[in-house]
Amino acid sequence: MKLTKAVITAASPDHRSLPIQTLVDRDGVSRSVLEILLREIHSTGIEDVCLVIHPGDEAAFRRAIADTPVRLTFIAQEERLGYGHALSLAADFIKGEPFFHAVGDHLFISSDAKRSCAQQLIELATLEDCSMSAVQSTRETEIQHYGTIAGSLERSSSGEAIYAIKDVIEKPTPTEAEQKLIVPGLRAGRYLTYFGMHVLSPLVMEILKESVRDAASSGGKVQLSPVLAELARRERYTALKVQGSRQDLSQKYGLFHAQLALALVGSESTAVMQDILEIVARSRQ
Amino acid sequence: MKLTKAVITAASPDHRSLPIQTLVDRDGVSRSVLEILLREIHSTGIEDVCLVIHPGDEAAFRRAIADTPVRLTFIAQEERLGYGHALSLAADFIKGEPFFHAVGDHLFISSDAKRSCAQQLIELATLEDCSMSAVQSTRETEIQHYGTIAGSLERSSSGEAIYAIKDVIEKPTPTEAEQKLIVPGLRAGRYLTYFGMHVLSPLVMEILKESVRDAASSGGKVQLSPVLAELARRERYTALKVQGSRQDLSQKYGLFHAQLALALVGSESTAVMQDILEIVARSRQ
Repeated sequence: MKLTKAVITAASPDHRSLPIQTLVDRDGVSRSVLEILLREIHSTGIEDVCLVIHPGDEAAFRRAIADTPVRLTFIAQEERLGYGHALSLAADFIKGEPFFHAVGDHLFISSDAKRSCAQQLIELATLEDCSMSAVQSTRETEIQHYGTIAGSLERSSSGEAIYAIKDVIEKPTPTEAEQKLIVPGLRAGRYLTYFGMHVLSPLVMEILKESVRDAASSGGKVQLSPVLAELARRERYTALKVQGSRQDLSQKYGLFHAQLALALVGSESTAVMQDILEIVARSRQ
Repeated sequence: MKLTKAVITAASPDHRSLPIQTLVDRDGVSRSVLEILLREIHSTGIEDVCLVIHPGDEAAFRRAIADTPVRLTFIAQEERLGYGHALSLAADFIKGEPFFHAVGDHLFISSDAKRSCAQQLIELATLEDCSMSAVQSTRETEIQHYGTIAGSLERSSSGEAIYAIKDVIEKPTPTEAEQKLIVPGLRAGRYLTYFGMHVLSPLVMEILKESVRDAASSGGKVQLSPVLAELARRERYTALKVQGSRQDLSQKYGLFHAQLALALVGSESTAVMQDILEIVARSRQ
């Protein structure tokens, strides 16, 4: 399996402005969230990226990308039919190939100095030649915000710990999680939740197509978690705990926390800490 | 003097995206920089605001203002003729009245719990019935970034310290400042620099008109500081050291520092400090 394409979803009416917000990246350069993400994707060798956006946002998005070596394809989600529907719109773009997918309102901060989160995931998914989602260990009190997986621990052919995914539940209750989502080897009260990036086989697009058709007749929205649960039933589908943190920018203070986390792993962490202490000291005078 | 109108300049090609960035305000509500500024202006009783923007930005700006009680007028600066030129475009909007002016790429954080920076300035300017600029005491090493004033200490009719402005120099060198800009009563090595907000008499628009005409024949740009220096020569023009800080969002980490300063004076300062410490601790694991 070789990945040449990526899909970023950024069509949600509530979060559409997040990818065009500006942060200082780990090299100390001011860039939009989108540009930081595109650079991470490009560093894995992917050169074609499709952005699923809210109608009318293309100009603002293009402006937020000063300079990128990747080829961009914009697709507007004209109907508000959910996250899964947004992703399904990229079917013609991916043309039956496996693809990398990331949400546009997160920042992924690797704690591995040499490899970004996308690199960690793509390297191993390519080696295993199957769909693989990045996950992270999450406290029970927070799983209500995330897609959460059930799975069993395995070893990849390179010896790394991965999980064979058996089921996926979107935003489970603690009771549901305790009954269905306990993963051996995690600390008590911890679960594996989606990180916001995936390597997906073309079968996902097939299942999405079916879900969009079903939703059209029932009038509901199309979410991604049930589609990935179905993927796990039909073919091998794995998860990797990446070394790093996911910063959900749509949370309150999300951009602030992301900037702090990014600065702390970057080349200017000492100066940033000094600035913080100075501002705190001044505010207490 | 009663103020009913304000002009915000946000047309600079480099800083045009700053007013539409999102911050959490001191009440813990996520808002765009522009919306925070408009609320500050509206709280002073001003209901008509003119925004001088880069061509094509109106839609993005309108989208960044979820809900505002002020009436908005957008004017696009079609030619890149400088900050003074941008302000001059609002001449028809202010129609010979005094007006409040703030730059759109700053956040003003009052340390007076009861009055915003705009309120402090407007109250006193109204009482003194003259043009008045907000200023702050600034270290010699930083005055190269700002318009800097020369002036003498006076008392307002309400007994507050204000300065009668004698001259204004844009981005002075330390030598120039030492020769021309020493203000009695400040600590050694400190000067009074512009804060980014002004109450201006209609004469400013007259002088701006002359400067735009002169620049058209010489081919130069129109800056505001020389215009305000001329204002000081023609009529009474004062300065007030406001209680608060100016956060220049165009600086590197400007948004991050502004968010921190804003959070520290807000209702969620304790939670924000806890979050910071948690993120720092996690990054050092």
